[in-house]
Amino acid sequence: MAPLTEPLTLSIDAMGGDKAPGMVVEGIEASLEGPRQVKFLLFGDEAKLSPLLESHPKVAQVSEIRHTEDVISNEEKAGVALRAGRNSSMRLAINAVSGGETAGVISAGNTGALMAMAKFVLKTLPGIGRPAIAAYYPTRRGESVMLDLGANVDCDADNLVQFAVMGEVFARNVLGLDQPSIGILNIGAENLKGNEAVQKAATILQDSSLPIKFYGFVEGDDIGAGTVDVVVTDGFTGNIALKTAEGTANLFGDFLKQALTESPMAMLGAFLARPALKKFKMRIDPRRYNGAMFLGLNGICIKSHGSTDAIGFANAIHVAVELIENSFNEHIKEDYEQLSGHAPDLKRVVGGE
Amino acid sequence: MAPLTEPLTLSIDAMGGDKAPGMVVEGIEASLEGPRQVKFLLFGDEAKLSPLLESHPKVAQVSEIRHTEDVISNEEKAGVALRAGRNSSMRLAINAVSGGETAGVISAGNTGALMAMAKFVLKTLPGIGRPAIAAYYPTRRGESVMLDLGANVDCDADNLVQFAVMGEVFARNVLGLDQPSIGILNIGAENLKGNEAVQKAATILQDSSLPIKFYGFVEGDDIGAGTVDVVVTDGFTGNIALKTAEGTANLFGDFLKQALTESPMAMLGAFLARPALKKFKMRIDPRRYNGAMFLGLNGICIKSHGSTDAIGFANAIHVAVELIENSFNEHIKEDYEQLSGHAPDLKRVVGGE
Repeated sequence: MAPLTEPLTLSIDAMGGDKAPGMVVEGIEASLEGPRQVKFLLFGDEAKLSPLLESHPKVAQVSEIRHTEDVISNEEKAGVALRAGRNSSMRLAINAVSGGETAGVISAGNTGALMAMAKFVLKTLPGIGRPAIAAYYPTRRGESVMLDLGANVDCDADNLVQFAVMGEVFARNVLGLDQPSIGILNIGAENLKGNEAVQKAATILQDSSLPIKFYGFVEGDDIGAGTVDVVVTDGFTGNIALKTAEGTANLFGDFLKQALTESPMAMLGAFLARPALKKFKMRIDPRRYNGAMFLGLNGICIKSHGSTDAIGFANAIHVAVELIENSFNEHIKEDYEQLSGHAPDLKRVVGGE
Repeated sequence: MAPLTEPLTLSIDAMGGDKAPGMVVEGIEASLEGPRQVKFLLFGDEAKLSPLLESHPKVAQVSEIRHTEDVISNEEKAGVALRAGRNSSMRLAINAVSGGETAGVISAGNTGALMAMAKFVLKTLPGIGRPAIAAYYPTRRGESVMLDLGANVDCDADNLVQFAVMGEVFARNVLGLDQPSIGILNIGAENLKGNEAVQKAATILQDSSLPIKFYGFVEGDDIGAGTVDVVVTDGFTGNIALKTAEGTANLFGDFLKQALTESPMAMLGAFLARPALKKFKMRIDPRRYNGAMFLGLNGICIKSHGSTDAIGFANAIHVAVELIENSFNEHIKEDYEQLSGHAPDLKRVVGGE
């Protein structure tokens, strides 16, 4: 791990995101507070980036532009992006990680293309069959992590077990939890207990001698309750659960705003409670949780929400720094090694597909 | 349709639910306001129900106890309940619907057992392969309906198309919408657009000449936004999405409560805004949306949340009354008939499995 005084360098896909590159440069500026020195390689259109750096001298001081011609659009299919996007800002930003020039990459661009390119360029870590998208989120008890959030639409039991192990390593090393608990997302009605993959994955985790704390099945409402530290699910369900939670939070926020502006008395009350309401708003601010991690790749790759603003993008940068400073990928490698030794019966599963 | 002055009779599984039978009797009492006269057949343990009716004379006036010995527990497997639960409160309450004694049944008991028994006793409507669980919920634009919420873990494209048609009939006839829009729940990342079933169902709905307004795919955050009036999904994803939304609402409510009690000034503000906050709380109160509908059965069957209270149970009763008064099942039958004529190519799909 590099000492704090030695800057680490990150690749930035400066052209990814609905409001790029302006939002990206502002996001870098917003990320500059904090003890860690970070340098940035900005991959994108120099003609657009140069004036932005001129008007953001603090960013200019720590950034270097790498001119790129192409941009991957949000509509581009992953396969096409992979073949035709070799000179895109996204691809060259990823290449810099594999070349060792930067310690990680952040993009607010096309998720499918980013995953396809990152997988192709960085490759998966030894023992990982498929990378997963993970994110952490607020719960009643603190913070938990959920994966997969959309990288793998169809998952079998082995995939889910691998996600469980990656999530455990993340919760221990990055969230700093001593013995994180793992749950598999399932439906609640007795007798209707889920599909074959979740059943089989639960059996593997239950019967195994893996030194991880398997809680069993959890339901949708356990996500917000923080019943477990790691929620494991397939990418289809995980993506929908995450977005449903976001949508519910938005709806709730709208309803609250409507209620607190409906009468002069309500407005006065809201005014008096303003610091408390502000703190409340901050606590559930989705920007604080922006930055989905592509776990299982041989390199740090963070996906920012495409529609986020500077505060959200700054958070995605912090997520990358956190994974790098906690040597996350080293820990995954070590733990997989150890797990294979500890539970030889699981070698097939944790040894990849 | 019976005139409003003629009471309709409902079967009540008085022993189902965490706080039954007390909660059930209180729920009936809470439901008695409103113009519609309703009578109740209470299936359950007479020794427990008699004293409850004595202390709730208004309920006693409109209720008749049918003594039953057995109770289906929440842990009972559906298959076992179906074979061994022939004298249970749940089963006999359903039997009364098929015998024509009551117009519908409400239970807060074991979901899997209720579905298995209701399907066995009531049978599915002509044209419906599999019944689905549906519920409505608040959105930014009003109210929408989602199905399936857990009856069918694995769904193929034909099942999803049938759910779309049932949801459309519900939204038109019960929610009173003129031309309800239908969306299929999917994940958002481009290039990762969902599994085979949702893809194929979307193609069928898109290409068909069915007179329904198919919007296309929606994502998790579209649920709360109310992007469409009917959200169609498989029972695994739907159950998790619904519970995730509930969990998020609970979390949000807790955080808000904590914020508004953290300082004297915040408490004063909350006091002044109390009527507004109360209205807000009511608007998102899950009890208002209690009462999941088993759609596609030849009889009205409503599942109440097992942990609900009297207010929630009263709402489940109202849902049953609403479906009955709107002749919901007649409409499904007619519409299926019409749809088959209108779109002969879809006869295979809307004609059931």
